[in-house]
Amino acid sequence: MNAKAILFDVFGTVVDWRGSLIGELTAFGAGRDIAGDWIALVDRWRGNYVPSMDRVRRGTLPWTRLDDLHRATLDQLVGELGISGLTEADRAHLTRAWHRLHPWPDVVAGLERLKRRHIIGTLSNGNVSLLTNLAKSARLPWDVVIGADLLHHYKPDPEVYRGACALLDLSPAEVMLVAAHNGDLRAARAEGLRTGFVPRPGEYGPHQHQDMTAEAAWDVVATDFGDLAEQLGA
Amino acid sequence: MNAKAILFDVFGTVVDWRGSLIGELTAFGAGRDIAGDWIALVDRWRGNYVPSMDRVRRGTLPWTRLDDLHRATLDQLVGELGISGLTEADRAHLTRAWHRLHPWPDVVAGLERLKRRHIIGTLSNGNVSLLTNLAKSARLPWDVVIGADLLHHYKPDPEVYRGACALLDLSPAEVMLVAAHNGDLRAARAEGLRTGFVPRPGEYGPHQHQDMTAEAAWDVVATDFGDLAEQLGA
Repeated sequence: MNAKAILFDVFGTVVDWRGSLIGELTAFGAGRDIAGDWIALVDRWRGNYVPSMDRVRRGTLPWTRLDDLHRATLDQLVGELGISGLTEADRAHLTRAWHRLHPWPDVVAGLERLKRRHIIGTLSNGNVSLLTNLAKSARLPWDVVIGADLLHHYKPDPEVYRGACALLDLSPAEVMLVAAHNGDLRAARAEGLRTGFVPRPGEYGPHQHQDMTAEAAWDVVATDFGDLAEQLGA
Repeated sequence: MNAKAILFDVFGTVVDWRGSLIGELTAFGAGRDIAGDWIALVDRWRGNYVPSMDRVRRGTLPWTRLDDLHRATLDQLVGELGISGLTEADRAHLTRAWHRLHPWPDVVAGLERLKRRHIIGTLSNGNVSLLTNLAKSARLPWDVVIGADLLHHYKPDPEVYRGACALLDLSPAEVMLVAAHNGDLRAARAEGLRTGFVPRPGEYGPHQHQDMTAEAAWDVVATDFGDLAEQLGA
């Protein structure tokens, strides 16, 4: 299990996007006296995550960064949910809420431990600027930030997993992907990467019905990032 | 001077490639009882740096990572300098000496200060794997690692400076390049970036005749990375 690099899925695995966004958007609405079903907005925003990337993956859309997919979905949902009074600056600010998500409580200490003996980095559908701003805000001590805009492919396209290994000049067997999503790990394993599962059963709040447990014999199954560090001897 | 991101040239500006390589290669030769003019090898290795990249920049060579340019030059120089007894593994190991260079003494403390208020990262002709390994080895606390292989261009091609700003989703005026080389800063300024000069008069040892001082009114001229942090209010 001596992976030289440990790469992490970010949304859901490292950061609590749902809780963070609900908190920020609710506070925004209250502060600006703008009424809206902010919880529905957040859940539907994320609900369009995979469909919007799939339009890029299938070639319906040309390459588009996640920030821009997020903005297009926000514009659509603001209309559908009848939220009024949002300026252009407000929409830009709310889209950047994805750059200010909070990590799960075990994350920073676990990453600090893993960083001592491994290269640690992102392997995310986020763009590099989003991931870099997020790391500054959440104090994530990455050695390297790999975002989908470096590879012009979204997970689970195999090009993402292969491309990350190529950028690090490592063989797939020297790289572990850690994710809270079995599908991401299946795609990584298909390309020869090692796999680590950490469940995040609160990721989708009361709506979560999937990824409650490991669905395959992943190389490591850990309860949180501290346990992951422990199992990897870090 | 409120640049959001401060990007650094690496070879010469951040790390002492010449002193580090002479130290490592001399020790290697002594330990393995392999005779060679290691100082000449190092100086000629670096001497072929710009010419080898220029072959890529002019299209004579297809895109080639710096690691591979370094290896090709090493193979050529070993022959020219009559150094015998190097195995394939030795040559790979020596090429990776570029991943283990030592920082100048002021670097790590200066970067730690700058990191508090700015995004800090590389803007280097090195490849991402080289730069990531170097950061681990030298404890360089980058927020983001931008190497030439992300852009498929070598400095001073304008695509490098523009591409780095695009990856960070910042305007050129929000990004500062720090370098010990006036030519790099000239190219960055031409693309609208802010510029910071830190002299490294020992970079080329006794052979240095250029870049002893700032040759233009760069936005910041600092004596070292501590002074740079001081001047930027970090």
